[in-house]
Amino acid sequence: MTQITGHQLIGFSTSAQGTETFQAANPAQASKLEVNFHEATSNEVHEAVEKAQAAFQLFKKVSNARKAQLLIDIADEILALGDTLIERCMAETALPRPRLEGERGRTMNQLKLFAEVVKEGSWVDARIDTAIPDRQPLPKPDIRQMQVALGPVGVFGASNFPLAFSVAGGDTASALAAGCPVVVKGHPLHPGTSELVGHAINKAIQKNGLPEGIFSLVQGTGIEVGMTLVQHPGITAIGFTGSYRGGKALFDAANQRAVPIPVYAEMGSTNPVFMLPGALEAKTEELAKGLAGSFTLGVGQFCTNPGMVILPEHESATTFKNILNQANQESAGGTMLSAGIKSAFEHGVSQLKENGAVSSIGSSPNTAEGNQVQSHIFETSLEEVIKDSSLQHEVFGPSTLLVNSSGKEDILNFARNLEGHLTATLFGTEADLAEYAELIDILEQKVGRIIFNSFPTGVEVCHSMVHGGPFPATTAPQTTSVGTAAIKRFARPVCYQGFPQSALPEALKDENPLGIWRLVDGELKK
Amino acid sequence: MTQITGHQLIGFSTSAQGTETFQAANPAQASKLEVNFHEATSNEVHEAVEKAQAAFQLFKKVSNARKAQLLIDIADEILALGDTLIERCMAETALPRPRLEGERGRTMNQLKLFAEVVKEGSWVDARIDTAIPDRQPLPKPDIRQMQVALGPVGVFGASNFPLAFSVAGGDTASALAAGCPVVVKGHPLHPGTSELVGHAINKAIQKNGLPEGIFSLVQGTGIEVGMTLVQHPGITAIGFTGSYRGGKALFDAANQRAVPIPVYAEMGSTNPVFMLPGALEAKTEELAKGLAGSFTLGVGQFCTNPGMVILPEHESATTFKNILNQANQESAGGTMLSAGIKSAFEHGVSQLKENGAVSSIGSSPNTAEGNQVQSHIFETSLEEVIKDSSLQHEVFGPSTLLVNSSGKEDILNFARNLEGHLTATLFGTEADLAEYAELIDILEQKVGRIIFNSFPTGVEVCHSMVHGGPFPATTAPQTTSVGTAAIKRFARPVCYQGFPQSALPEALKDENPLGIWRLVDGELKK
Repeated sequence: MTQITGHQLIGFSTSAQGTETFQAANPAQASKLEVNFHEATSNEVHEAVEKAQAAFQLFKKVSNARKAQLLIDIADEILALGDTLIERCMAETALPRPRLEGERGRTMNQLKLFAEVVKEGSWVDARIDTAIPDRQPLPKPDIRQMQVALGPVGVFGASNFPLAFSVAGGDTASALAAGCPVVVKGHPLHPGTSELVGHAINKAIQKNGLPEGIFSLVQGTGIEVGMTLVQHPGITAIGFTGSYRGGKALFDAANQRAVPIPVYAEMGSTNPVFMLPGALEAKTEELAKGLAGSFTLGVGQFCTNPGMVILPEHESATTFKNILNQANQESAGGTMLSAGIKSAFEHGVSQLKENGAVSSIGSSPNTAEGNQVQSHIFETSLEEVIKDSSLQHEVFGPSTLLVNSSGKEDILNFARNLEGHLTATLFGTEADLAEYAELIDILEQKVGRIIFNSFPTGVEVCHSMVHGGPFPATTAPQTTSVGTAAIKRFARPVCYQGFPQSALPEALKDENPLGIWRLVDGELKK
Repeated sequence: MTQITGHQLIGFSTSAQGTETFQAANPAQASKLEVNFHEATSNEVHEAVEKAQAAFQLFKKVSNARKAQLLIDIADEILALGDTLIERCMAETALPRPRLEGERGRTMNQLKLFAEVVKEGSWVDARIDTAIPDRQPLPKPDIRQMQVALGPVGVFGASNFPLAFSVAGGDTASALAAGCPVVVKGHPLHPGTSELVGHAINKAIQKNGLPEGIFSLVQGTGIEVGMTLVQHPGITAIGFTGSYRGGKALFDAANQRAVPIPVYAEMGSTNPVFMLPGALEAKTEELAKGLAGSFTLGVGQFCTNPGMVILPEHESATTFKNILNQANQESAGGTMLSAGIKSAFEHGVSQLKENGAVSSIGSSPNTAEGNQVQSHIFETSLEEVIKDSSLQHEVFGPSTLLVNSSGKEDILNFARNLEGHLTATLFGTEADLAEYAELIDILEQKVGRIIFNSFPTGVEVCHSMVHGGPFPATTAPQTTSVGTAAIKRFARPVCYQGFPQSALPEALKDENPLGIWRLVDGELKK
C-alpha cells in the first residue's frame, strides 16, 4: 500500500528540508488527520524545477505513443491506489464516497482522452507551404510550422475538486500531453490525497522508463511556495483553478517576471441563469427543484454554481420562488471543505443580508456541527445588480441570488453590463429563444459557455467544452481548462524554413509518417 | 485624387479637435512636409472606440463572403491611390520606390490571403460533440464550440514598414478577418501615408455597404493617444510592431487595466545566424556577400535583421570577415527613417565602440547628408556575449556583431543562454546539420522561426509563417503576427450546450451550411 510520508516529491526522490509542518483536517469532525506535511523550502521548489528542465530535454523527444501510454498508466495507477485514496480524500474533504468515486472516474477519463489526442497527433496544427523556386520576383522558400511544447509548467491544485482539478487533474493531463513536465503545488486542504496521486504519477513514469522530473509535487500552506514556483525562470506557464484573489496574484507576479509567462487561471464566477417566460410558465416546478439541486450540489463548491438567476416579470415567478424555497428548506445542508471556506461563505452571506437592496427568501435548516452550513436564497432587482457590481461576485458556497426583472429590455441591458463569467444559462421554449435571440448574441461576448435548458454545474470533458471565459472569470479568455483544446495552452508555434527532410520533426516530413491532418499549401490533408 | 487633411478619421467622419499639430518630415532632406496633422484628443479616441463597439455588433454578423470582399476591396482601393500613395510614402520614409511598390504588393497579397481564409471559413475551429441521451450514469449533452471575434482591436502602425505593418498591415488585416473592428494609432513618421490608406479602407467599407466604425485612424506624436486607446474598456486586444520599450509599456498598461487584454507586441530581436564550419568553408564568399546585403537591407531597419553572426573556429572565418568588410565598404549606406531613429542607431553603435570586449571590423564610407548612416561590423567572442547580455540587444539599423566561437560545445552553451528572438539561422551542409542536431533542438525553445541556408530578412506571408518568438522578441510567444495563423489572435472559443439547430451559428449547424472542416465527435470532417 502506498504510504503518505508528508515529504515533497522532487522527481523520484522525497525531500523534507522544511522544518515547519502542517496537518490536514477532517472538515466534518474538525479533527486533525495523521501525517505531518513539511512546508516546501525555496530550495526544494528550485530542485523540482531544475529536474523538470532536465527532464524536458528528454520528454519533448518522446514519441506520441509513449506519451499516450504514460497518461493511460497514470489513470490506472490512480485507480490502483484503491480505497486508500478514496478514504483519505473523504477524510480530507468531507465529500461523499460516490462523488469522489465519480470524480476519480472523471480524472481517469480525462487522462485517457488526452492520451487519445496525443496518440492521434493532429493537435500540433502542422502546416506546410512547399517551395516555388522559380517564383518571380523572388523564389518562395519551403516553410513548415507546428506546435512545440513550452517547457516546465507549474500547476496549482484546486480545493474543490481534489482529484479532477488537482495533482493529476486537467491542467496536469493537458501539460503532460503537450510534452511539458509539471511541478504541482498541492492544495493544502488535501495534502494526503495529493501525495498519493503524486506517487501514482511517478510510478507510471517509472513503469514507462521515462526520466524523473517529468513530475514533482511541492506542498505548503502559505503563498511563498507558489510564488517561488511562479517566479522561477525555468517555469514557462502556470495552470490554476481557485479564487479571484489567488489567480490574480499569480497573473500579476507572472507578468512582472523578467520574462513574463502565461497564467491560465480559472477563478470562478456567478454564472447567470436566465429563466425565460415561456419555460418558467411551462416548467415552474421542475426548474425550481432543479435550481435547488444545482446551487447546493457539492455544497455549492462548484465554479459553475448558478449564483444569479434572472426571473421575468411573470406570475409564475412567485410560484417558482415558493417551490424553490420549499425544496431548499427540505435539503440536508452539507459540510464545506474547510473552516476557512465556511467562514468566507458566511461572510459573503452576511454581506448579502446587510445589503439594503437584497432580501432573504429563505435558508435551509440551521445546523451547527463541524463545518456544516445552511444554503441560502436571496433576491434583488436587475437595477440593483447593475448599480452594485459586487452583487455579481461569487459567494463560494450554497447560495443563489434571484434577480427580478421588469421585462426584455431590462434583461438585455443587464446582459450588456455583465462582467465575464464561465457560463450563462437560458431556460426557454423555442419561442422564448427566438424572442431572446439578441440575448444570446450579447452573452457570446460575456461567457465561455452558453447552456440551453440545463443547469451549468455539469462540465463535460470532451473536444468542444469551453471551461473558461472573459476576465474576471479567467485570466486567459482565449483558452479552456477543460476539454481537449486545453492542450493548446502549453505549446507555441515554431516554423522551420528551408529544412532538409532529415532535419525536420516527424510531424512535418513530406511522407507524413505520423499520419496526421496537416494544412498543405492551404489544404487540409492526411 | 484622395486628399490628406491632417484630421482623424473617426468612422466615416473627419475630426480635428486637437489644437496641437505636427508635420511629417522628409528624412532624406530633413525638410518638413505639407499638411499639419492634428494630435488626436482623448475625446476623439473615445469616439473612435465607441463607433467601433457599435459597428462590432453588426460586423460580427456579416457573412464570410462579405468580410472577404471587404478585404479584397481594401487591397484594390490601396492600389487605386496610385502614385499619390507611393510618392507621399517615399517622401515620408526615404524608402526607394521599388521597395515601396513591393511592400504595397505584399500588403495587398496579405489582405487577399486573409480574404481566402475568411471565405473558406474553417479557421473558426468548429467542434461538435453530439449528445448521448442514454449514457450512464448521466446523459451526454450536445456541445459545440467555435471561435468568435473578440471585439474592437487597437493597432499600432510600425515605422519601418509604412504599408505592410501599418494602417492596413498584417494586424489590421487579421483583426478585420476575424470580425473585429480596428482603431489604428498611426505611426507619426508617416502620417500622410497613414491617412491615405485610412481613406482607402473607409472607401472599401462604404462600397460594401458596411457600417462606419469598422475602421478609425487616430494620429499623434506622444504616448497619450496610444495609452488612451489601450486603456479604453471597449478595446479587447492590441496589435503592435515596434521597439521593446514601446511594446513593453503597452503590455504593462494592458495588464494593469481593470479587465486586462492581450497585447500582441512584436518588439524585434538580433536574430542570431550560425555559420557552421562546412558551409563557411564551402561558400565563404557567397555567405560574406549575402550577409553584407542582408544586414544593410532597408538600411538595417528590419525586425529580422541578422544582428549577431556566430562564427566557428575555422580558417575560413578570417577570409569571411575580409570579404564581408570589403563588401560593406563598397556599399552605398542609406537614409534612416528619421533623425530620432538615426540618433538611436548611432548611440547603439557608439556603445559597441566603447565596449572593451567588442572591436570594430569596419564601416561603410562616411556620409553626412540628411539622415544617412554608415553600416558597421563589429566582433566579439561568445564568452563575452554570455557575460554581457546587452550585446544580445537589438541595435536597430545597419550593424552586425560577429561572434567568434571556440567550437561546438561553446556554441551549444551560447544557444542555451540565448534570450528569445524572432529567428535563428543556420548555414550548413547536411553534414553540419547532423553534427549540430542539438543546436536545432535548443533553438526550438528560443525562437519563432529557424531558417536553414538563407538570411532571415525575408518574411513570407503564408499559412506556416511564424513571425513571433519568446519574450523579449514578443509579448505573446504563442502567436504569430505574419501569416494566416495571425487571425487566431483576435478570437476566443465559445461553447453552445444543448442548443436547438435554429439558434446555433451557421458554422455549428448539423448540415454544415458553410462546408467547413469540423471536429465531429473527435473526427475531422467536411
